[in-house]
Amino acid sequence: MNRLIRQISAASSRARVARASTAAASKREPALRSTQWSQYPPHQNHLGSFAAGAAIAVATVPWWFYCGISPAWAEAPTEDKPRKIRLSEVRKHGRRSEKRWVVRGNKVYDITEWIPNHPGGEVILRAVGGVIDTYWEIFSIHKKQEVYDILEQYYIGDVDPRDLVDGRVPQDGIEDPFEDDPLRHSTLKVHTERPCNAESPVEVLDKFITPSEQFYVRNHLWAPKLDPESYRLTIELPDGEEVAYSLEELKKFPQVDVTATLQCSGNRRKHMTEGSRYANGLQWGIGAISNASFRGVRLRDILAHAGFDGTAEDNAEIKHVQFQGAEAYGASIPLEKALSQYGDVLLVHEMNGQPLPQDHGFPLRVLVPGHVAARSVKWLKRISLAEEESQSQWQQRDYKCFGPNQSGSDVDWAAAPAIQETPVQSAITSVKDLPKGERLLQVYGLEEDSIEVKGYAFAGGGRRIVRVDVSPDDGRSWTQAELLEDEAAGRKRWAWTQWKLVVPRRLAGANFVVKAVDEGYNTQPGGHEPYYNFRGNLTGAWHRVPYKNRDPY
Amino acid sequence: MNRLIRQISAASSRARVARASTAAASKREPALRSTQWSQYPPHQNHLGSFAAGAAIAVATVPWWFYCGISPAWAEAPTEDKPRKIRLSEVRKHGRRSEKRWVVRGNKVYDITEWIPNHPGGEVILRAVGGVIDTYWEIFSIHKKQEVYDILEQYYIGDVDPRDLVDGRVPQDGIEDPFEDDPLRHSTLKVHTERPCNAESPVEVLDKFITPSEQFYVRNHLWAPKLDPESYRLTIELPDGEEVAYSLEELKKFPQVDVTATLQCSGNRRKHMTEGSRYANGLQWGIGAISNASFRGVRLRDILAHAGFDGTAEDNAEIKHVQFQGAEAYGASIPLEKALSQYGDVLLVHEMNGQPLPQDHGFPLRVLVPGHVAARSVKWLKRISLAEEESQSQWQQRDYKCFGPNQSGSDVDWAAAPAIQETPVQSAITSVKDLPKGERLLQVYGLEEDSIEVKGYAFAGGGRRIVRVDVSPDDGRSWTQAELLEDEAAGRKRWAWTQWKLVVPRRLAGANFVVKAVDEGYNTQPGGHEPYYNFRGNLTGAWHRVPYKNRDPY
Repeated sequence: MNRLIRQISAASSRARVARASTAAASKREPALRSTQWSQYPPHQNHLGSFAAGAAIAVATVPWWFYCGISPAWAEAPTEDKPRKIRLSEVRKHGRRSEKRWVVRGNKVYDITEWIPNHPGGEVILRAVGGVIDTYWEIFSIHKKQEVYDILEQYYIGDVDPRDLVDGRVPQDGIEDPFEDDPLRHSTLKVHTERPCNAESPVEVLDKFITPSEQFYVRNHLWAPKLDPESYRLTIELPDGEEVAYSLEELKKFPQVDVTATLQCSGNRRKHMTEGSRYANGLQWGIGAISNASFRGVRLRDILAHAGFDGTAEDNAEIKHVQFQGAEAYGASIPLEKALSQYGDVLLVHEMNGQPLPQDHGFPLRVLVPGHVAARSVKWLKRISLAEEESQSQWQQRDYKCFGPNQSGSDVDWAAAPAIQETPVQSAITSVKDLPKGERLLQVYGLEEDSIEVKGYAFAGGGRRIVRVDVSPDDGRSWTQAELLEDEAAGRKRWAWTQWKLVVPRRLAGANFVVKAVDEGYNTQPGGHEPYYNFRGNLTGAWHRVPYKNRDPY
Repeated sequence: MNRLIRQISAASSRARVARASTAAASKREPALRSTQWSQYPPHQNHLGSFAAGAAIAVATVPWWFYCGISPAWAEAPTEDKPRKIRLSEVRKHGRRSEKRWVVRGNKVYDITEWIPNHPGGEVILRAVGGVIDTYWEIFSIHKKQEVYDILEQYYIGDVDPRDLVDGRVPQDGIEDPFEDDPLRHSTLKVHTERPCNAESPVEVLDKFITPSEQFYVRNHLWAPKLDPESYRLTIELPDGEEVAYSLEELKKFPQVDVTATLQCSGNRRKHMTEGSRYANGLQWGIGAISNASFRGVRLRDILAHAGFDGTAEDNAEIKHVQFQGAEAYGASIPLEKALSQYGDVLLVHEMNGQPLPQDHGFPLRVLVPGHVAARSVKWLKRISLAEEESQSQWQQRDYKCFGPNQSGSDVDWAAAPAIQETPVQSAITSVKDLPKGERLLQVYGLEEDSIEVKGYAFAGGGRRIVRVDVSPDDGRSWTQAELLEDEAAGRKRWAWTQWKLVVPRRLAGANFVVKAVDEGYNTQPGGHEPYYNFRGNLTGAWHRVPYKNRDPY
């Protein structure tokens, strides 16, 4: 279907929607032009670029707009008589109440009608009967004008001044969803504490196996603390029948070991921002990637045991396997990945020879090797076989890519496929001087001062790295790095590849550069700009590290 | 293993070898430097580039050098008493003789010892007892100094002057291997007649299905004319047992239809040569790719029926499926591709609803969708289950890639993996003016003169195309093309995707540019130089077409 048409019709029909959309609609024409034909390279059009960046934040189209849902309140009056409400009354409208209220700032909202439409699902019930501000600090996706506008539709009154302290609603008395989060290793490079988003320290990125406590952490919510004894995994079959397994029952299936690399789709987002324009999301360096050995049972074995036959006629419509985590995170993968004898999708209970750490999904997580880590759902509670993908925001919104000219205000979210397999990637993890000496002469035949460059390379889909090209002079000349041996086995290559190269120091220019090639001969592009996407996903342009300042971040 | 070490040790040990190698050894040091650190972009170092180009032709290392074979004749004397030999005597040393001779120019050679080492295999027997020049015209790989040097080792004398006509050996009396080649469609863009290498005409490249007679032809040798009645396919099992199938027997297995695109690894090589330096091989434009619907039987079904169980313990060592064509062409694919329920590897007997045309493998060919077309062996005669890849030159040499700095004189052929899956690709097939009018306004909302750009996009590995970005101004601005609907079905996407875009003419710069993105979010790089490989395989940089001169080639 033609995207131009789509955008134009979207512009008109959007008039239906309240405030934010009217705003959007008014700047539709210029918006269409600027996003369709934004200029490259960015420095030729800095203002335009920043404008576009800003537009994303303020004018993202409400998620339900594309789901074709026309909420009941759309025609509801947006004005109400200000009414004073005591907090004691708010507390009565919690999850057990028929009418559910929340407080934001000093205002009270009745969101009963909204709850079934909530993209984040049931987790919203944690907030009802109290103050929602804390939760919005956590669920950063709410910090958008579009969401504020949705909430305004449900305004029913103000908090009674008698309950205000220094003119504000006291935040205490609200359950802290992060109270069970574990302690974390001090060497992790923390971006956010709650939820925990932290990179592996660069020192371990050139080791084949990442120590579990230094494995990067990417939590979308809190880290649930689950009791292995009472733990149950529920599998929902196409006919609705449910089969539950205890941890002990699962461990009775054949145990499989897979060494796999997990990478956040935001890995190296910082480089996209630096090389192009601001890309939305955490500004990860090169450490949103780690590699470990995992032990678990084959998902296909469990599905078969639960009674699912992927080849059966009745199941011809089943295309996706949906995963639900205990903290409300959800995602899905294509059925063929789950059923393929070469897919190696596991339900994992051990990491690097130990039970899974809490941050990595104890007692059970999914491992979808070769796919973006966002599909390897942690604290796995439920598996469903479905005709469609998971409807979670993490499948429908957060992990998608668009063109360099597109912004959140003019994309068709539904038409963009959710990221599954990831493209070829590489990074330099260290640049070290080697003063000339015997060893250098013997091993490399180099009788001069040299530089040792090390790093990692990785590709999704089980495609092994076949070549790593390194340039000591900003890409003017190249040579091939040594691909280091490791213990990764199997017909598919799920693990990253460490590499190393020694080059004469006299050849060093301003920047060292790396690019890798995978088994499918996919390559990495030179610059970021033509590959920019406003979500900053899958940054894959050459990694450049200045010879002077060695910081690979 | 470290490539620098490898090259250095290679340099020393190569001294063993005769003429060419001595030459090579003498210029080893400078060679190492220049190939390791060749400059980019090329215009900064044109001579160097051409020198490197030439070096490939004169100094390629003999194939057997890397196979660790030390031929018997290596120590043999390189000088012999010139002896006069009658052609009648030469003819006595044909394929039925114990000693086998060939004539090249006016010299006679006894190649008996060499035959078992011949990379092209048994086909060499067609030439023995006669003049080999004709064959070398066909097997262009022989036209290299390294090969001349190998042959010189077997020199036994000169052709008796009494048999010379105008001082040359008469070429007649030699069987023409191309006598059975079929007639071809006049619209094909022919690069070579014998063997036939011809592109699809650009007019059909924007149609989803390529008419069979306009499907590009890439023959490595002649096109055998096989009798379907007497035709037999032989399957060699790991234990050496052989099972043969007639065409009728094969057709009794479940029939499967797959619409798949086949692409030569040399497609767009011309663009790499133009954008960088001369890349060895036929200078294909954008037409070494076509798409058709194929009907056949599953390879996995036939292997199972023949008695091969890929999961059996005894077969754990089996990693490859080798294919042998009737004309001597051979190649192999990884076993997992052959056995995967999602691999769709077929033994094909129909193309676009008709029996296979002779040029495309009548009566039976392999279809390995998502892999480079060189693995879809035509005129299939034999399938072997093996621990290693096919040892043919087409698996071991011709279809491999190397770094931009590397040349045939310093690469480790054995260490480079043979091309199987291919990377994301796209091309512009037409750029057309659209004078402003009603239709343009209604469909695209454009009330001005516009330009319609069309083309194709394709990725290997069954990865569908998810986005095509088109720039009207050399990549300064981008927009998304419309991906056209088609009938390709199945969980994997084996067919290419046609695309179309209409842009306001005022936006047109010097060049239109296209780049595509596949399901794994692999992208195409902007320029050719950093991705140059001397074999000119898998050219994948953005395709640029000048707005003025519309020729997409």
